[in-house]
Amino acid sequence: MDRGTLIGFLLGLGLLVLVIALGPNPRIFLHPASLIVVFGGITASTLIRFPLSSVRSAFAIASRAFFRQAAPPQSLVTHLVGLSQRARREGILNLERHMPDDQFMRQGIRMLVDGADHQYISDVLTQEIHATQERHTMGQEIFRFIATAAPSFGMVGTLIGMVQLFVSIKDPAGIGQGMALSLLSTFYGAVVAYLFAVPISGKLEFRSREEMANKKLILEGIMGIASEMNPGQLEEQLNASLAPRHKTRREGLRG
Amino acid sequence: MDRGTLIGFLLGLGLLVLVIALGPNPRIFLHPASLIVVFGGITASTLIRFPLSSVRSAFAIASRAFFRQAAPPQSLVTHLVGLSQRARREGILNLERHMPDDQFMRQGIRMLVDGADHQYISDVLTQEIHATQERHTMGQEIFRFIATAAPSFGMVGTLIGMVQLFVSIKDPAGIGQGMALSLLSTFYGAVVAYLFAVPISGKLEFRSREEMANKKLILEGIMGIASEMNPGQLEEQLNASLAPRHKTRREGLRG
Amino acid sequence: MDRGTLIGFLLGLGLLVLVIALGPNPRIFLHPASLIVVFGGITASTLIRFPLSSVRSAFAIASRAFFRQAAPPQSLVTHLVGLSQRARREGILNLERHMPDDQFMRQGIRMLVDGADHQYISDVLTQEIHATQERHTMGQEIFRFIATAAPSFGMVGTLIGMVQLFVSIKDPAGIGQGMALSLLSTFYGAVVAYLFAVPISGKLEFRSREEMANKKLILEGIMGIASEMNPGQLEEQLNASLAPRHKTRREGLRG
Amino acid sequence: MDRGTLIGFLLGLGLLVLVIALGPNPRIFLHPASLIVVFGGITASTLIRFPLSSVRSAFAIASRAFFRQAAPPQSLVTHLVGLSQRARREGILNLERHMPDDQFMRQGIRMLVDGADHQYISDVLTQEIHATQERHTMGQEIFRFIATAAPSFGMVGTLIGMVQLFVSIKDPAGIGQGMALSLLSTFYGAVVAYLFAVPISGKLEFRSREEMANKKLILEGIMGIASEMNPGQLEEQLNASLAPRHKTRREGLRG
Amino acid sequence: MDRGTLIGFLLGLGLLVLVIALGPNPRIFLHPASLIVVFGGITASTLIRFPLSSVRSAFAIASRAFFRQAAPPQSLVTHLVGLSQRARREGILNLERHMPDDQFMRQGIRMLVDGADHQYISDVLTQEIHATQERHTMGQEIFRFIATAAPSFGMVGTLIGMVQLFVSIKDPAGIGQGMALSLLSTFYGAVVAYLFAVPISGKLEFRSREEMANKKLILEGIMGIASEMNPGQLEEQLNASLAPRHKTRREGLRG
Repeated sequence: MDRGTLIGFLLGLGLLVLVIALGPNPRIFLHPASLIVVFGGITASTLIRFPLSSVRSAFAIASRAFFRQAAPPQSLVTHLVGLSQRARREGILNLERHMPDDQFMRQGIRMLVDGADHQYISDVLTQEIHATQERHTMGQEIFRFIATAAPSFGMVGTLIGMVQLFVSIKDPAGIGQGMALSLLSTFYGAVVAYLFAVPISGKLEFRSREEMANKKLILEGIMGIASEMNPGQLEEQLNASLAPRHKTRREGLRG
Repeated sequence: MDRGTLIGFLLGLGLLVLVIALGPNPRIFLHPASLIVVFGGITASTLIRFPLSSVRSAFAIASRAFFRQAAPPQSLVTHLVGLSQRARREGILNLERHMPDDQFMRQGIRMLVDGADHQYISDVLTQEIHATQERHTMGQEIFRFIATAAPSFGMVGTLIGMVQLFVSIKDPAGIGQGMALSLLSTFYGAVVAYLFAVPISGKLEFRSREEMANKKLILEGIMGIASEMNPGQLEEQLNASLAPRHKTRREGLRG
Repeated sequence: MDRGTLIGFLLGLGLLVLVIALGPNPRIFLHPASLIVVFGGITASTLIRFPLSSVRSAFAIASRAFFRQAAPPQSLVTHLVGLSQRARREGILNLERHMPDDQFMRQGIRMLVDGADHQYISDVLTQEIHATQERHTMGQEIFRFIATAAPSFGMVGTLIGMVQLFVSIKDPAGIGQGMALSLLSTFYGAVVAYLFAVPISGKLEFRSREEMANKKLILEGIMGIASEMNPGQLEEQLNASLAPRHKTRREGLRG
Repeated sequence: MDRGTLIGFLLGLGLLVLVIALGPNPRIFLHPASLIVVFGGITASTLIRFPLSSVRSAFAIASRAFFRQAAPPQSLVTHLVGLSQRARREGILNLERHMPDDQFMRQGIRMLVDGADHQYISDVLTQEIHATQERHTMGQEIFRFIATAAPSFGMVGTLIGMVQLFVSIKDPAGIGQGMALSLLSTFYGAVVAYLFAVPISGKLEFRSREEMANKKLILEGIMGIASEMNPGQLEEQLNASLAPRHKTRREGLRG
Repeated sequence: MDRGTLIGFLLGLGLLVLVIALGPNPRIFLHPASLIVVFGGITASTLIRFPLSSVRSAFAIASRAFFRQAAPPQSLVTHLVGLSQRARREGILNLERHMPDDQFMRQGIRMLVDGADHQYISDVLTQEIHATQERHTMGQEIFRFIATAAPSFGMVGTLIGMVQLFVSIKDPAGIGQGMALSLLSTFYGAVVAYLFAVPISGKLEFRSREEMANKKLILEGIMGIASEMNPGQLEEQLNASLAPRHKTRREGLRG
């Protein structure tokens, strides 16, 4: 998990738990009925809104996006240029002994070593990029939907709680307790939306952009190796598609 | 009905019923006056906003979209390519004995067999696609409108209830009951909007995109059969317009 | 008035009146001070926002749009093609004896019969179309503005009512009554917005699109008659700009 | 001030004053602390958001836009064509004796009479148009910002009031008075936003569009006079850029 | 700090402090638990949403943008044209003795004096501009995110406070105090959002546009000096990209 996200989650949850624990009667903040309405409502409406298969994978995608940080593009350029040099020196077949850790890069190198057709390699990797992007976009949409569903079902839960409260008012001493309980749904909905769904959908978008850019860089590098491009030229070409501050700089080429 | 939608509806309704049934005085949650204001208000404003004919068909369209799942595009490609092979082997007239189940594909094949002019076939099917799209778009807009109308009339109902409550406060014991009743309109509006109208309009959009893509694929296939295109070429052409993960892959053609 | 709109208005108002009449103390729902704040506030802010002349005509435009339903485009095509045939058979001057009911079509035919310059006819009719569109757009904007102003002034009225209520609390028995009265402004604002302004601005947009399409069709037809185009060709040309399901179909031309 | 705006302001303020004056205890509606929070908050956040110089001029711009109504474009065309005829008859130098009232038109004619270079005249007038547009846009943005800041600081003021109220609850008789006072901030914010800032920013946009169109028309006319264009041609050219219903029509040219 | 921003901050905070200090019991407005929830929640969700490094620099960027006002573009043009004249008279090497204060301009002149390759100078400065823009955009997004997170966590804090309040109602005398405390979170959230985050993100956008325009002007000027362009031509070229009212005007060239 990237450090900022981890710190954010721990800080947010920690402070909430602290403020609740130091207050009176902290155990009341766990209210099963409210939890059922809020999390059940979010789940139900998400299942109606999105295809079942997308929902199933969204959380896996999200957690993977958080636990595996994107490689810095410079290191990818360096790695690809290195592979390109080795391929020219020792032949493409020898790349097999230097398989990269990155799964996408490895998939490309594997096909290179296996002598697959260049167009076929490009097709398979492009298809992989499209599929990843599709899953990422769906993931962001699902978290954005949750960000609006959570407060809505928080309100639904609170309405149920208040109706039940007002209906059974006989003992005025019970009003406070009932009021507290009915507010918990709104509380759960707000925490789910503002501490989780909203910032996560934002960071997923950021991560997705990073990962897509990396995958396109790798695709370009693999195709360059396949066509036995000059390593110096390959580096220049890969750098050209990078944001300026990410370029690998070789002072010798300048001024 | 597609499985996710069914599970979502049952889960959402089931949990709400459960939480209400386990609470005090569950029968109070059925409040005729609130139901009248909320559902009457939604119906009335929808009738003012949309042409009568569109409203009438929107629910039929919606339920059809839920009960009939779109065919996977690969199976359509396979089917069309199969028909194309058969047409070349046995002649177009013999397609009559292998009518497809899909109504749109059948309509096209029927015209082919009847020897209709190719331009005429293309016109009729294109017109059908346009009409379907128009009805789908109208359907989504109607559910999106309901999603904003429902909470609004929930509020209107609650305001009526609270005015009536405050006006007749004599017996303080009745306040709770009255308050509960006036909140039910807001509750109904929220459930209609967040559990039904919002996610349904979203899934309708998704389904519509799927179905339109399929219909265009079928149109392309029918026209290919009509012009006696080579089945292999037809498959390649149909695959070209598919998202990568939906292509029918024939390994023999590659690497 | 088109049937859907009429049914919607009657249903919405009827149900509200019903629910109010069956409740306690229905007369309290007529509260002059709240009516003044809400309707006065809407009127005042609308006058500040829009030019005086546009406001004056907006309601006329709106009611006209509701009472006069747009002609089905097929009937216009049939009518124009009929006029075209008659003009070729009996001469343009004889069209005078078969003046259409539609005011816009009549204006065009009148100029044709009077022997006006074709460019002049086209200019005048185009100018008429632009002016109508401008008025329609302004009308939709005014109702959309009212849709946001109404709840706002409902809130202003309720705030005034609550301040007055809290200031004069001496007799606790009067709280209920005062609370009820102060909520009526919000109630009026919500009904004006959600039952009238929001759906009306939506239907105006729909009607405007319909009427503009019809006027452009008529302009095209008149110009075709003016240039003594072949009626068959004219029909084909007019059909070309129609949505598929609105085309006048002549089976003989196909298959 | 244009009539609609004046009527709107007077109507809106008048009705509010009326409803307040007829209610109990009208003087309570003037609450210094709430006025300070709302108007101070609006001023402070506007100063942070916008450059100081823009804020200073925004109100001058706005009031000028309201007090000086844009000239009808037809009258400008007539005036410019008249000047063009006079310039051809009597020479450009003689325009000095017929200086127009419109300041922008006068600035152009003055430069013409002074024999300035045509390109220089065009540059100066274009620069004037840009500067006016920039100030107008900034003015609209400032009022749009106020429209969102006003309710926000209304809420801030009400929160301060309610905290102070609840903290000092000892004498239950004071609750009503305190509640009333704390609601006044929200009331002020709502009136500022909905009766002033929202409709004013809308009308400013409308007026700005009108004035820009007029200034461009004048620029075109001045340049036409400078190049001693034929008055008839000039009229046609100026009319061409007008909306159809604003054209000056000369029947003789048609039908 | 630019004057408007400083006045705005002091005015806004001063008035709030004044209104609170003059009210009853001002010390209650400092409530540690509410401060923890609101500022902790904002920090936590911001850390989850944005990469850690961006958050770290955002506040530095923002405060720098406020303390260092952008130079007026005319003075930059004058300065660059002056350097250009000096470079032609005394040679580029002599610019070393007249280093400008502006860091970006100095960086460019330094490279000129060092005899760096022109393409290299352009690349380095362009890269600097991109990096600045990227940081500015991220800064604006962060403050916009804070503007929506602040009221959200204000609500979360108030919900916690109200649950704790209602749960522990035994002594009715404590209700007021508890209610006051629970409202403070909403108050903090509103002040952070409406007095700081919303207007700051707006002004950052304004400042960023100003600074980017200046940096592009400087880049253009440096490249002009590098290519030993004629100072008069350079001035004309630099003026061409300025808004009309910012051009340095040389009357001699005109009329």
